[in-house]
Amino acid sequence: MKLATFNDGTRDGRLLVVSRDGTRAAHATDIAPTLQAALDDWNTTRPKLQALFEALEAGREAGFALDVTTLLAPLPRAYEWIDGSAYINHIVLVRKARGAEPPATLLTDPLVYQGGSGAFLAPTAPIPHFDEGYGIDFESEICVVTGDVPMGTRAGEAAGHVQLLMLANDVTLRNLVPPELEKGFGFFVSKPATAFSPFAVTPDELGAAWREGRVHRRLRTTWNGALFGDTDAGPDMHFGFFELLEHVTKTRRLTAGTIIGSGTVSNPDEARGASCIAEKRTREKIATGNITTPFMRFGDTVRIEMLDDAGRSIFGAIDQRVVRAERKG
Amino acid sequence: MKLATFNDGTRDGRLLVVSRDGTRAAHATDIAPTLQAALDDWNTTRPKLQALFEALEAGREAGFALDVTTLLAPLPRAYEWIDGSAYINHIVLVRKARGAEPPATLLTDPLVYQGGSGAFLAPTAPIPHFDEGYGIDFESEICVVTGDVPMGTRAGEAAGHVQLLMLANDVTLRNLVPPELEKGFGFFVSKPATAFSPFAVTPDELGAAWREGRVHRRLRTTWNGALFGDTDAGPDMHFGFFELLEHVTKTRRLTAGTIIGSGTVSNPDEARGASCIAEKRTREKIATGNITTPFMRFGDTVRIEMLDDAGRSIFGAIDQRVVRAERKG
Repeated sequence: MKLATFNDGTRDGRLLVVSRDGTRAAHATDIAPTLQAALDDWNTTRPKLQALFEALEAGREAGFALDVTTLLAPLPRAYEWIDGSAYINHIVLVRKARGAEPPATLLTDPLVYQGGSGAFLAPTAPIPHFDEGYGIDFESEICVVTGDVPMGTRAGEAAGHVQLLMLANDVTLRNLVPPELEKGFGFFVSKPATAFSPFAVTPDELGAAWREGRVHRRLRTTWNGALFGDTDAGPDMHFGFFELLEHVTKTRRLTAGTIIGSGTVSNPDEARGASCIAEKRTREKIATGNITTPFMRFGDTVRIEMLDDAGRSIFGAIDQRVVRAERKG
Repeated sequence: MKLATFNDGTRDGRLLVVSRDGTRAAHATDIAPTLQAALDDWNTTRPKLQALFEALEAGREAGFALDVTTLLAPLPRAYEWIDGSAYINHIVLVRKARGAEPPATLLTDPLVYQGGSGAFLAPTAPIPHFDEGYGIDFESEICVVTGDVPMGTRAGEAAGHVQLLMLANDVTLRNLVPPELEKGFGFFVSKPATAFSPFAVTPDELGAAWREGRVHRRLRTTWNGALFGDTDAGPDMHFGFFELLEHVTKTRRLTAGTIIGSGTVSNPDEARGASCIAEKRTREKIATGNITTPFMRFGDTVRIEMLDDAGRSIFGAIDQRVVRAERKG
């Protein structure tokens, strides 16, 4: 099934069930007022939501025509947003770009950072920043939403803790990264609000493409209307979501509704393009010594989506424009 | 006024108003079911909670005898937990301990990290870990709970965004820190669940001790019954909470209920002791070349509190024991 969050003006919006083709929706607030509330009581709410989804698919529930611009992120705010960097090719390329070495434990110890989770961007919301000089970049990612996950969970036990999948645009301010990482505490101001796809979907919606904690499908990234990346999210994900779940529960538990990201989807095969601008720039530098692709400018757009075999958008599209934020006063 | 969260078995508990002396409480669920709900609608709920607090103080509301072991953290889970490191003395000492240099921008650019906020420890909850070899340490801190804070907020505008103050025990697994920071993405497994004080208090409860975004009082840390630190939280806080708020809103906004920590309270004056074991060990190493103080062992206790001029505990005491966590299976 597919779920979404309607923007009714409240902080956490209202839970919707969405048809498989993404065109119709039904209010699910009788089952749970919000997606977080549904996840807090998933064993009870999931079968009821599934029944509503099936009724919508069968036409027994009429629903209404869905306008994705009325949606918030599926979780407009979450208790945790933990973003991995599981595509080794991305780590190697991006560190090369800033003259840094990949960590010695690259292949054995997952890289993750704790992201800000209090205020996410809606799938079609503008990306507001004060300064183009920050080096505004998109990062197209897959993510999972977990249930309660105990401390000490092993990768082999992780599958049952993955309740939903989404796409993310993990916006990164590239020119703020080097001075911030130099301080030793990881990202903060260089990682502004993240945007998520219109729909959060249960793993069964992906069919055989969801296996071994990886999504074996292409992720399309379009920048200003031109296809920029059509990367394969599956085989090059060195640590799958189950390994990431083992890593992030080594010393603490997770609450229901925690979001875990894959990191920028990236393939060594250059023909696939890239899921962020930084990778393209690094490749230019390696190939010619000259970087010709700029970061995003005010007015630029980015669209991120994943299609099924019939060409239908599984998660709906993240479709955003970078805008200049106005300083108060 | 003072607020707390009663453990009724639900994820977010029930909101209580607590008497100034911390001995009595009244249910506030008619005003807001949880502290997060109160903060989400603070302009409406604050005056009602204040009226209930005054009725409790005046004896017009009988309330009930409060047992702090029935309390969860004031926010049992939060949308963000952003921990600063605003006491320069702590940064210098702890980096010395692991042979690292303080960052070049030590005095001009605040250090913060994004902490896990999905599952906090109650003030009297055990601290469960699998392995003493992690180097289990306490860190006694002050923190603020914010309202909604816009992106681009200046330090001079920050005071009105501080709704509540609490104490924190930001447990740190010292032996996991160096390999984790080596990877370049900051802390994750080295920062397990944080505990918070029984009471969250409005800034007016601190009187003149709350000024310029700092708490000018001593913070007492007791390890296994012996006073370990009686550090002054005021003058050595290089960046106050208002400067921290400016820093963390440079590129994004904060939602109501965001928690911002001071970092380990630390004074250059050794006579004040320390608010974490790592500092004591570093001082031993500098003084004699030999580290004699171990980290915490299973069964060890730590107590953290702040007293007013009359010797009353302002926030109630964090009072925890380290216990061995059992691995499943």
